Amino acid sequence: MTDLRVGMVGYAFMGAAHSQAWRTVNRVFDLPMQVKMAAICGRDELKVAAAAARLGWEAHCTNWRDLIARDDIDVIDVCTPGDSHAEIAIAALEAGKHVLCEKPLANSVAEARAMVAAAATARAGGALAMCGFNYRRVPAVTLMRQLVAAGRLGAIRHVRAVYLQDWITDPEFPLVWRLQKEKAGSGALGDIGAHIVDLTQYVTGQQITGVSALTETFIKERPLPTASSGLAASGNGTVTGPVTVDDAAVFLARLDGGAIATYEATRFAMGRKNALRVEINGSLGSLVFDLERLNELEYYDATQIAPEQGFNRILVTEAAHPYMEAWWPPGHIIGYEHSFTHEMRDFVLGIATGADPAPSFVDALGVQLVLDAVERSAGNGSSWTEVEPIYAEVSS
Amino acid sequence: MTDLRVGMVGYAFMGAAHSQAWRTVNRVFDLPMQVKMAAICGRDELKVAAAAARLGWEAHCTNWRDLIARDDIDVIDVCTPGDSHAEIAIAALEAGKHVLCEKPLANSVAEARAMVAAAATARAGGALAMCGFNYRRVPAVTLMRQLVAAGRLGAIRHVRAVYLQDWITDPEFPLVWRLQKEKAGSGALGDIGAHIVDLTQYVTGQQITGVSALTETFIKERPLPTASSGLAASGNGTVTGPVTVDDAAVFLARLDGGAIATYEATRFAMGRKNALRVEINGSLGSLVFDLERLNELEYYDATQIAPEQGFNRILVTEAAHPYMEAWWPPGHIIGYEHSFTHEMRDFVLGIATGADPAPSFVDALGVQLVLDAVERSAGNGSSWTEVEPIYAEVSS
Amino acid sequence: MTDLRVGMVGYAFMGAAHSQAWRTVNRVFDLPMQVKMAAICGRDELKVAAAAARLGWEAHCTNWRDLIARDDIDVIDVCTPGDSHAEIAIAALEAGKHVLCEKPLANSVAEARAMVAAAATARAGGALAMCGFNYRRVPAVTLMRQLVAAGRLGAIRHVRAVYLQDWITDPEFPLVWRLQKEKAGSGALGDIGAHIVDLTQYVTGQQITGVSALTETFIKERPLPTASSGLAASGNGTVTGPVTVDDAAVFLARLDGGAIATYEATRFAMGRKNALRVEINGSLGSLVFDLERLNELEYYDATQIAPEQGFNRILVTEAAHPYMEAWWPPGHIIGYEHSFTHEMRDFVLGIATGADPAPSFVDALGVQLVLDAVERSAGNGSSWTEVEPIYAEVSS
Amino acid sequence: MTDLRVGMVGYAFMGAAHSQAWRTVNRVFDLPMQVKMAAICGRDELKVAAAAARLGWEAHCTNWRDLIARDDIDVIDVCTPGDSHAEIAIAALEAGKHVLCEKPLANSVAEARAMVAAAATARAGGALAMCGFNYRRVPAVTLMRQLVAAGRLGAIRHVRAVYLQDWITDPEFPLVWRLQKEKAGSGALGDIGAHIVDLTQYVTGQQITGVSALTETFIKERPLPTASSGLAASGNGTVTGPVTVDDAAVFLARLDGGAIATYEATRFAMGRKNALRVEINGSLGSLVFDLERLNELEYYDATQIAPEQGFNRILVTEAAHPYMEAWWPPGHIIGYEHSFTHEMRDFVLGIATGADPAPSFVDALGVQLVLDAVERSAGNGSSWTEVEPIYAEVSS
Repeated sequence: MTDLRVGMVGYAFMGAAHSQAWRTVNRVFDLPMQVKMAAICGRDELKVAAAAARLGWEAHCTNWRDLIARDDIDVIDVCTPGDSHAEIAIAALEAGKHVLCEKPLANSVAEARAMVAAAATARAGGALAMCGFNYRRVPAVTLMRQLVAAGRLGAIRHVRAVYLQDWITDPEFPLVWRLQKEKAGSGALGDIGAHIVDLTQYVTGQQITGVSALTETFIKERPLPTASSGLAASGNGTVTGPVTVDDAAVFLARLDGGAIATYEATRFAMGRKNALRVEINGSLGSLVFDLERLNELEYYDATQIAPEQGFNRILVTEAAHPYMEAWWPPGHIIGYEHSFTHEMRDFVLGIATGADPAPSFVDALGVQLVLDAVERSAGNGSSWTEVEPIYAEVSS
Repeated sequence: MTDLRVGMVGYAFMGAAHSQAWRTVNRVFDLPMQVKMAAICGRDELKVAAAAARLGWEAHCTNWRDLIARDDIDVIDVCTPGDSHAEIAIAALEAGKHVLCEKPLANSVAEARAMVAAAATARAGGALAMCGFNYRRVPAVTLMRQLVAAGRLGAIRHVRAVYLQDWITDPEFPLVWRLQKEKAGSGALGDIGAHIVDLTQYVTGQQITGVSALTETFIKERPLPTASSGLAASGNGTVTGPVTVDDAAVFLARLDGGAIATYEATRFAMGRKNALRVEINGSLGSLVFDLERLNELEYYDATQIAPEQGFNRILVTEAAHPYMEAWWPPGHIIGYEHSFTHEMRDFVLGIATGADPAPSFVDALGVQLVLDAVERSAGNGSSWTEVEPIYAEVSS
Repeated sequence: MTDLRVGMVGYAFMGAAHSQAWRTVNRVFDLPMQVKMAAICGRDELKVAAAAARLGWEAHCTNWRDLIARDDIDVIDVCTPGDSHAEIAIAALEAGKHVLCEKPLANSVAEARAMVAAAATARAGGALAMCGFNYRRVPAVTLMRQLVAAGRLGAIRHVRAVYLQDWITDPEFPLVWRLQKEKAGSGALGDIGAHIVDLTQYVTGQQITGVSALTETFIKERPLPTASSGLAASGNGTVTGPVTVDDAAVFLARLDGGAIATYEATRFAMGRKNALRVEINGSLGSLVFDLERLNELEYYDATQIAPEQGFNRILVTEAAHPYMEAWWPPGHIIGYEHSFTHEMRDFVLGIATGADPAPSFVDALGVQLVLDAVERSAGNGSSWTEVEPIYAEVSS
Repeated sequence: MTDLRVGMVGYAFMGAAHSQAWRTVNRVFDLPMQVKMAAICGRDELKVAAAAARLGWEAHCTNWRDLIARDDIDVIDVCTPGDSHAEIAIAALEAGKHVLCEKPLANSVAEARAMVAAAATARAGGALAMCGFNYRRVPAVTLMRQLVAAGRLGAIRHVRAVYLQDWITDPEFPLVWRLQKEKAGSGALGDIGAHIVDLTQYVTGQQITGVSALTETFIKERPLPTASSGLAASGNGTVTGPVTVDDAAVFLARLDGGAIATYEATRFAMGRKNALRVEINGSLGSLVFDLERLNELEYYDATQIAPEQGFNRILVTEAAHPYMEAWWPPGHIIGYEHSFTHEMRDFVLGIATGADPAPSFVDALGVQLVLDAVERSAGNGSSWTEVEPIYAEVSS
């Protein structure tokens, strides 16, 4: 079996999540290639060395250009903050590497367009590019897509999607990189709002065409950080700096299939830890998903006889469900982390068979264009703002 | 004990709901006045006679002016469609009657302002006016208000409110009065959207200051109706007419205490029957309510010790809960209808003690102004639209 | 329309619940007879007079024999503690009255057998007898029965039923009549255990044939009571008496259709207020019911395609559901009290048409025999104890 | 860092689950020893070789005695069916290996006693023994234990525990080893009933002292199997054999702290996939757990003020919760498999520090004695049967 040698840039929360997926994927799925965790890259020598040991990488380095320069590495997995995605991914593609890039694809539309162009060029040489909207691979979400694609919901009328967290409600929580525009691009909008935009476009098969938006930064100054881990962090409390991203973003939208939608992304929904919740109503049925109960899907089938209609709680752990045949017996739930395991499975299969994996960089650009429209609308009195077409030349 | 003689105009869904409340209120609560169901009024002689017999009214008539003219009637209860609220309520107030008027107060801001003026004038003569936003008296909703008023949520950051129904998803459902602008004023917006506007303003103690809105009519032509009952109806299917109200309305809002909000009212959420759902997030806690489980309230208290924080499902059936001491033992749930029983209790108490009951016509005008801003924003490319002040002269 | 004149004995919790049902039934349902609330009887002159005024009865008296002696009364409704059921009901039947008797039918099998005999004799003269297991008329429970009767569950394998309350967990809660064997017959077993025995036998259409049981009295002495209302009460705390009934009863059972079952009735399940919960598993599906959410029924249909199987939460508020066409639009929930309204509806219909209403006294004797077997097993080292046949002569 | 070299016997469902845990434990937790997956053993050469490659073991063999004979192996992990536990575990302990043995400890009390004796002897030489009741290490279960141990529930009154599955409801499901008494010892009782016995004894800190039980085999003959995987299997349908274990077991119990309890283990609860559900009621509060939602715990705290009491849904994903600091940010749920990861963590820590890990073989014998009492009661007309003391000599 051919080896697939991976080099990863970044070693924090996403680095740990991706590492477990690379480590696990061949242990659970039958794949035509064997993943090798070749090297991990990070700027801090001590920390990246520790991460390599902890997470199980063969080697480590501190300059991502060295990683890309290695002939024995097939895949570059980009897990850094958004401000370096474009530079690393484009360089990797130009070097002929397959690239998996974490979401959001970039911090700006311009960067995202450049990445799409680089991916198209690299594709001719056989390199594949994929963006890591991992929630598409939660089995319940994939099942949602299957049901919609099979016409089970009829005409989609409504989408309501929220992604609610509460980890920065404390004004003393420090000014980590995710709260700095130059690193993160935006706040809740790009970090978690991007997920619900991608997920709903994927599940409905429809694109958002226009938005009306509002953003808010509730806490405008925060202490500078002294240490962080995952989403947790601490500050010293004496020196502060300005929060330059949104704490929350809400927007209305229309989709190209006729649905109307509401979206909300916030880090100030007290008590909601990772509450990505989506409800879709169609003329024949409805679907409800909650990431905090990711092994479940609620499905209302309006074609059933009237006295038996209801929201059906499907425990998505059966062999008949997407990805689940490889896992445990029914009712034995899986965790958040395996959305990544499934992502790596499909990426490896794509590389092995030469088929383009989804979401492509083009799909991810589509998300970026929605985020861009949201920011423009929010900056312009919430006025209706059309989402720029993916291929800009088409509209000009 | 003094009698309080009531005359009601309207005998359909709301008429039945109000009748059970008038019939029940003295059987459950200790009140200083005894309600007498004196007369009911409707345009169709046969139907109103049948309703009087069925619902337990002493008499019936077909002209509401006759009802108002009677000296032996103390209260006029207005349960007609919105297009006649203003005329009936103003005439009743001018005749010195106490008035209970169903929501929405009117079909236009101008009518609502006229009603407010009439109520102010009548008040000098001792007549009271109240608008029937009955959901304020669901015990769980009253409890929400108490918790917010006690500061238990801290600073309110987010409101998300939806009112979802699905009773007109079938394109063959006929063109009943609720789908005609001249009768209903608006569609989902005024019928159910009004409820979530009032409920959230009541619970938070904050007013909506501006909105960005979108409305949609999914089914633009429907068969003319042949018969209807409650929300159910049938049509003959051959002759159609235009739907002139919204099927769904969504809007973003800001509240005057600093919160941002999303609202949605729709009759196209397949599987959702009466799903008024509200979530409020504050700096110290959160509250969640669902009208389909109206005896429950979820409360997240962020001041508890960390490992024990969670959404606490309170079964709002204890003697310590609002209105519940008069009812059954704990755990024995009450139904939708008793939001009206509680409304009548408070209205009767107000009359007996001379205290103004809430929501007043001014409160209801406040709701009307929000609905008006929503319609203006929706008609103006979703652009940000400020809610007109209740006292218009203040802003001029 | 013929009047049906009712006399009720008892005016406490059950008296109030039955009163609202008698008051409401003709206001909601089309019935061939008009209920008249003729008279209410209780031992305390002042209290029963107040209850009559509060609850809406035309007259009151203090001796139930006077009530039975009245020619203008058609129905005797027995709402007293269990120790007087047999005497009152038999006297009423002998006087040719229709009798509605609250559950449990009696405090002993011997009394219950005498009541069955009296009902059989009276039936020849046209008098009907019914026992008030009101939960059969919760729409979701009736729907359960319909689904099982239609074969939708296949062969029943398992019944698990609990009725959990917590109103006497406090050792200072006083020794009310429900805790005295001579008044109540038994404790949690007869009060709430009787409900789950009847409900599961009704829904499955199967009879319990044998049991193995355990009972417990956690708090053995309590203060004597000074006042009580509903299930609430207070004591003075200085003088105590022995609790002579069970606080909790648990038992295993076999049903005559092959199912095995577990039952639990307790007043010590902290946090559970009125948690009658039943789950039934069959070879083709399962049903789950919870009285604290009495408008909902969960149904698992194993004949659906595999990836879509799940527990379907049916909101039992549709016109297509039992009893619900007469009520509010879909999604507008009803309360506990209307299990009685539905009971009165069916009793009135039975009287009007001459059809025997269920549950009959024979059905209620069947429950009594199960309770008797439970007590015998608990008193005999939990050993397997067969339920005595309803017709004792059959087995002898 | 010292290596800890593990040899595992068995490679099916439990083998896969344990393998992922051994592979993961050092990647997530800081431990003083480094696990090495040295060798895996199974009878079928081809299958065990494939399993070794798939699951990541350095080597494989077909005779477990060879595994024990290896000097370079420190730990023997026994994942075989119950009939070989005693032989393998005792041999390993005699060879000085640390032993982790899957539950149930053995197929008989005699075997379990022999294993306890062997563990005691081996302990003197430094070898540790642990039984794999993995659900103790579900964070929500550990949290339950912490709350009870801290006195938060007061005096325990009730335990109700069920473990419901439905994987053999189809009569055509074949006669796999789990349905054969000589391999599995018992059916639902030992396989899943053992889990709820251990879990409730662990959480309450109380021991079951006596039981009254009933068992049932609904399907008495099944096709012989042709292939199986996990809990799934297929049969050829023509040749059948007798099912020699229980399909379901129900029992009543008393615990030594005064609580009464009901237990049910079944593989015939249609729609329930892995529904281990436990509710514990105490004088100060209650706890509710459901393995299908294993990241959640419901806690009712009766010491809160009355209007705010309710079942509090704790999302057990905070750094403050047991084991969770090592995982993802709050709200990012973990799966079933990590109950094993936590088990291995604690076993490795025990070995590193010389501290005895729980559950010990003595604890597991305690479970075995309960199962034995259940079988004796079921075989003796459900009569009350005392659980034999762990140290038999104490009672003689």
